Amino acid sequence: MDKEISAIQAKYEAQKIAFAPLIFQAVMALKKLGVLELMGRHYEGISIAEIIRQTGISRYGAGVLLEAVAGAGVVRYLDEHTVQLTKTGFMLHADRMTEVNLNFVNDVCYEGAKSLTGSIQSGKPVGLKKLGNWSTVYEGLSQLPDNVKESWFAFDHFYSDNAFPVALEIVFQEKPASIFDIGGNSGEWSFACCDYDGDVQLTILDLPGQLALAKRNAEARGLLPRIDFYPIDLLDERQRIPAGADAIWMSQFLDCFSEQEIRAILANVARASTPNTSIYILEPFIDNQTFEAASFCLTGTSLYFTCIANGNSKMYTLQTMTKLVQESGLTVVEVFPNIGTSYHSILKCKKS
Amino acid sequence: MDKEISAIQAKYEAQKIAFAPLIFQAVMALKKLGVLELMGRHYEGISIAEIIRQTGISRYGAGVLLEAVAGAGVVRYLDEHTVQLTKTGFMLHADRMTEVNLNFVNDVCYEGAKSLTGSIQSGKPVGLKKLGNWSTVYEGLSQLPDNVKESWFAFDHFYSDNAFPVALEIVFQEKPASIFDIGGNSGEWSFACCDYDGDVQLTILDLPGQLALAKRNAEARGLLPRIDFYPIDLLDERQRIPAGADAIWMSQFLDCFSEQEIRAILANVARASTPNTSIYILEPFIDNQTFEAASFCLTGTSLYFTCIANGNSKMYTLQTMTKLVQESGLTVVEVFPNIGTSYHSILKCKKS
Repeated sequence: MDKEISAIQAKYEAQKIAFAPLIFQAVMALKKLGVLELMGRHYEGISIAEIIRQTGISRYGAGVLLEAVAGAGVVRYLDEHTVQLTKTGFMLHADRMTEVNLNFVNDVCYEGAKSLTGSIQSGKPVGLKKLGNWSTVYEGLSQLPDNVKESWFAFDHFYSDNAFPVALEIVFQEKPASIFDIGGNSGEWSFACCDYDGDVQLTILDLPGQLALAKRNAEARGLLPRIDFYPIDLLDERQRIPAGADAIWMSQFLDCFSEQEIRAILANVARASTPNTSIYILEPFIDNQTFEAASFCLTGTSLYFTCIANGNSKMYTLQTMTKLVQESGLTVVEVFPNIGTSYHSILKCKKS
Repeated sequence: MDKEISAIQAKYEAQKIAFAPLIFQAVMALKKLGVLELMGRHYEGISIAEIIRQTGISRYGAGVLLEAVAGAGVVRYLDEHTVQLTKTGFMLHADRMTEVNLNFVNDVCYEGAKSLTGSIQSGKPVGLKKLGNWSTVYEGLSQLPDNVKESWFAFDHFYSDNAFPVALEIVFQEKPASIFDIGGNSGEWSFACCDYDGDVQLTILDLPGQLALAKRNAEARGLLPRIDFYPIDLLDERQRIPAGADAIWMSQFLDCFSEQEIRAILANVARASTPNTSIYILEPFIDNQTFEAASFCLTGTSLYFTCIANGNSKMYTLQTMTKLVQESGLTVVEVFPNIGTSYHSILKCKKS
């Protein structure tokens, strides 16, 4: 589409980017002050006087916010006194994915993003300093301020939760007796497996800190008899994944690592596997999304990895991940693209 | 245009806003790291390998930045290994107005913009705290860090400088013997008047701090014999503008005040005027711009006034300013819209 826009239109698009942080914050203000919600209930249009009356914001405040976001296509003026949400504005108001993204970017990324250049130069998540003094965000997760933590987990879960129901069907086609849940984090996937199949035995492999959390969660669910906990730092190549799993599962895990690290982790997986072991990689891939909006969110999320999370990981393409799998002694035997209503695909792999 | 976009397109547009701060910082990084400049010299397309070689950034860094801004229409992939600036990308690289806006938003506004909601609620520029402990940005101008100061003045001058040549012709049509330059700031307009007309006598009216700067500048130019300096705080209604001017000039001055304050200032001007005094108001107006991009920049700039500058002023419409003029005992006798190549209009007014 861009090929056809005029220079005048391109200059406008460039200004939208130049003023983007202010427009973003104007949208957040309209959300927080209840204006988008009110306009959503009056989708046919509402007078600015009524907005002022019902939300209690100043006439000045309503003026600057609405005028600015009108130029960004969020609202339109029906006449001098009346405004209406556009379709884009309605998405900003009512769409859950958009809300999750807005809160994640504002609470987790906004301030640290200013250090993106330095993060690229150093290979470190320099922006993370705005949240705390850790070397990766994963170290600090449990210590994040409440609103930041809430936005982080809402973002993390929103995308993977939609994938789990279909993922369970795929993994249990082969009736595995034991599953290793690598990078199992808070345990959500393992608990879902226990619910789905009354016989399967799980092992969560993760850093000791994460395991402690998963263990508490498992205990609360009465699942301790069915889940083992195996502390491991997969960035330390001397630490080996044990043998014995029928299935090895990695959900939204490999995108937390660089290509080199992924190769090392997958080689570790390969060594722990037999020809009968099925390895499942669940990831959202940039290059096989149905909707442009989804791949845009993924590439935007990569910037979060750069300046906040760890400084060296990203969302990958299916093509790159397939190459990394092959370079690590594994073979992709089946691809399940964009399962369920999710943006995630499953790569089923076997030892080469 | 928005009326016709699909829900799917609207969802994409909403994500562009949700990830806007990250995309903005990715563009800044591509500028700072020399990638946009390099791509501008290879407008036909350039390999990512060549970008890495010539700029020294990592393959990872090039990947995350280029993938993210591709989704925002800044670059396009010609194939897997080759990228090209879009027209929008070219504007972000080469257009001076866009550069001035990018630097202004990044250096002056970015961090403080997060306090936009609080600024609207309190009527105070809460975000200014990120730059220093002043009640308005004007108090702190001389103490801003160098890069912030540079971006602020570049923004301030970029827009008004284009207007001055034609403005001089308009004001000197009547051969005024004396001009009052209200809110004359560093003195640029008064110096331009002295250059333009060998006889005219100027008086700069401003806060004492600003006057000191203007005086130093006038001295350096040898213009002290032709310029008087009149200290005045126009927010204090007891302080009166003296009589005696043939012309009264206010350049990009009234947008620093709320509507109520503007009425008080204009009433002060009216009291100092006779029926023969010509009053000139130079302002960029939201509602009479030729290009959508220009009115978008103005409404975006209003948000800066809200969260950084003073908490209560904005860019106005021609309609609103005309109303304020009328309510203050003055009459607009002529409008000179978007003079020269500028976004500024002149309202010529007389005492009613």
